[in-house]
Amino acid sequence: MQQNDAQYMQQALELAQRGAFSVAPNPLVGCVVVRAGEVVGQGWHERPGEPHAEVYALREAGELTRGATAYVTLEPCSHHGRTPPCADALIAAGLARVVIAMQDPNPLVAGQGIQRLREAGIEVTSGVLEAAARQLNCGFVSRMERQRPWLRLKMAMSLDGRTALANGQSQWITGPEARLDVHAYRAQAGAILTSARTVMMDQARMTARHPKAERQPLRVVLDRQQQLPAEHEFFAIPDPVLRVVDGESDDQVWPAHVSTLVLPADTGRLPLRALFSQLAELEINDVWTECGAELAGALVAAELVDEWIIYVAPKLLGDTSRGVLQLPQLQDLAQAPQLRYHSFTQVGDDLKICARPLHGSAGADRGEVQS
Amino acid sequence: MQQNDAQYMQQALELAQRGAFSVAPNPLVGCVVVRAGEVVGQGWHERPGEPHAEVYALREAGELTRGATAYVTLEPCSHHGRTPPCADALIAAGLARVVIAMQDPNPLVAGQGIQRLREAGIEVTSGVLEAAARQLNCGFVSRMERQRPWLRLKMAMSLDGRTALANGQSQWITGPEARLDVHAYRAQAGAILTSARTVMMDQARMTARHPKAERQPLRVVLDRQQQLPAEHEFFAIPDPVLRVVDGESDDQVWPAHVSTLVLPADTGRLPLRALFSQLAELEINDVWTECGAELAGALVAAELVDEWIIYVAPKLLGDTSRGVLQLPQLQDLAQAPQLRYHSFTQVGDDLKICARPLHGSAGADRGEVQS
Repeated sequence: MQQNDAQYMQQALELAQRGAFSVAPNPLVGCVVVRAGEVVGQGWHERPGEPHAEVYALREAGELTRGATAYVTLEPCSHHGRTPPCADALIAAGLARVVIAMQDPNPLVAGQGIQRLREAGIEVTSGVLEAAARQLNCGFVSRMERQRPWLRLKMAMSLDGRTALANGQSQWITGPEARLDVHAYRAQAGAILTSARTVMMDQARMTARHPKAERQPLRVVLDRQQQLPAEHEFFAIPDPVLRVVDGESDDQVWPAHVSTLVLPADTGRLPLRALFSQLAELEINDVWTECGAELAGALVAAELVDEWIIYVAPKLLGDTSRGVLQLPQLQDLAQAPQLRYHSFTQVGDDLKICARPLHGSAGADRGEVQS
Repeated sequence: MQQNDAQYMQQALELAQRGAFSVAPNPLVGCVVVRAGEVVGQGWHERPGEPHAEVYALREAGELTRGATAYVTLEPCSHHGRTPPCADALIAAGLARVVIAMQDPNPLVAGQGIQRLREAGIEVTSGVLEAAARQLNCGFVSRMERQRPWLRLKMAMSLDGRTALANGQSQWITGPEARLDVHAYRAQAGAILTSARTVMMDQARMTARHPKAERQPLRVVLDRQQQLPAEHEFFAIPDPVLRVVDGESDDQVWPAHVSTLVLPADTGRLPLRALFSQLAELEINDVWTECGAELAGALVAAELVDEWIIYVAPKLLGDTSRGVLQLPQLQDLAQAPQLRYHSFTQVGDDLKICARPLHGSAGADRGEVQS
């Protein structure tokens, strides 16, 4: 590692972030080309099917790539996907050195990009700001390494941990700034997971309504007992929906944007791990979950939650109000699921807490999204 | 206001803070004497009966007080208390100017100190860093201006707002750092308020166990139905206790350090506002409250809470566990008590939230204690 490697890689990571609202299911990638201490080219991957970060950076650098160093947040691809291999482009550009934050977890690349560069006589340094790069693409990394999406569970509650009054009233506990923040997460997610009950109770549309939203996430609704009728307003919105049911579908006619996944229920519950494998196969990198205490508790109990995003309103609702999480009754405090705090932020009048499972999850260690 | 006034007053406020563990029921006061841009004397009030801050600062400055400026966080006293009036000492020292953060809310002083200084030909500036000075002495200010102590309500809960398992297990939800922080609050409080139920359930001693603890707060235990017997371990500790009951005391024999206050219950509850007036008469500036959901809810409903100190452990207990606050059932979210956040801090593994009533309280606007 050379002096300034981290600084240029940081710049490349910031460029990568610009694709956050558009790049899925591809990973976020940024690239900086440096020659004689000067940045001569920058690029980032904007959306699937469009050129990769390296291509833009090399284009901008033009003839100045000869003998230069490229900083790339993810190992350059070595395979022909929707675009030709970036490793070849870097070689053709006559670079002297390529610095990489992390190896591509995609088994189609997995070190082959680095190998190809080295074989062409280019000096390769890998692992610069690797943790930050894994965090940036925690969803993509999770899908590649764990064959399931990264799961964020949103909770919105009062300071005493309540989500609704006894009479069901819940809109709105948190303020407009927190709700906009939620829409930023929705707009960056591959899918939004919810339950038929939440859709019915809150008349929730689960769409991303944010100025930066470019596309709508897949809306995944768990409806084991098929309670949500085809004529529900939720299906009137023409963005894709995946209904998850536990048996043969009834004879309702569903619009073209609504698919149905049949997953036989296991002891009365839809099999959540099987669902997550299916979502990975649909190229969903990350799932944003908004639901009631029952599904939230099931996800926690199944150890599927990678990150909690909790909005805490400075209000007190008292303990006749509804709780945020249904868990099996504990006999000992040592059995309680343990988290670790990642950040506290004030969002409008509300507190936003980000937390992770105490002992981490198998995939990426950290994963922030721009919000 | 002159250049540097705020800077010297800030220094005086920091000196005042040094008395935090020992000065009650007196106010915290700091003093800095400045001559020709140089600090020539410093002092703070350490404990009742000992000299006031001004006396120490003047002593240290010696002959250099002639023509100098004194910065005092509270209006110098004009009356003979346990020590002679500080206003007279400042006059005798030949100061040219006295800068004061706030007028003394004590009706025995209340502007007379300032008047006496001015009559002696000393230039007086008042109101420098007044908000910070009121915050520093929020308890003393509350007792003087509202005839009741400043009330801090401590809550310790899981991230989903639970204080104990269904089986009652509650020790320990928060970590050792949070518990030490609690002992710092206890050690600085004039009184600790709790209920007989909490004492019985948690075997709580409610003493201040902190390296800086100099004295023990008055332990006030609400025991309307006189359930806590004289032989309970709580009374074995020889530090003062005030039992609050709602009728004639039974025939138990109480040790000398245990007093009993009879307050006739009002619709089955002890009259909390009347209790707080009584505590002010006992020269209690601030009350630290540790109790269960019932008393906490009653204090919130009575609008007696000036500050919430909430420790949130990164654990999930689920909604079969016990809630933190009993409130009358709400019919509309608009009826929910509203707070505003003051600070978020990580204490060990736990989150500490400080919050205030949204619309403030009649007395001091802000009140921090050193913890």
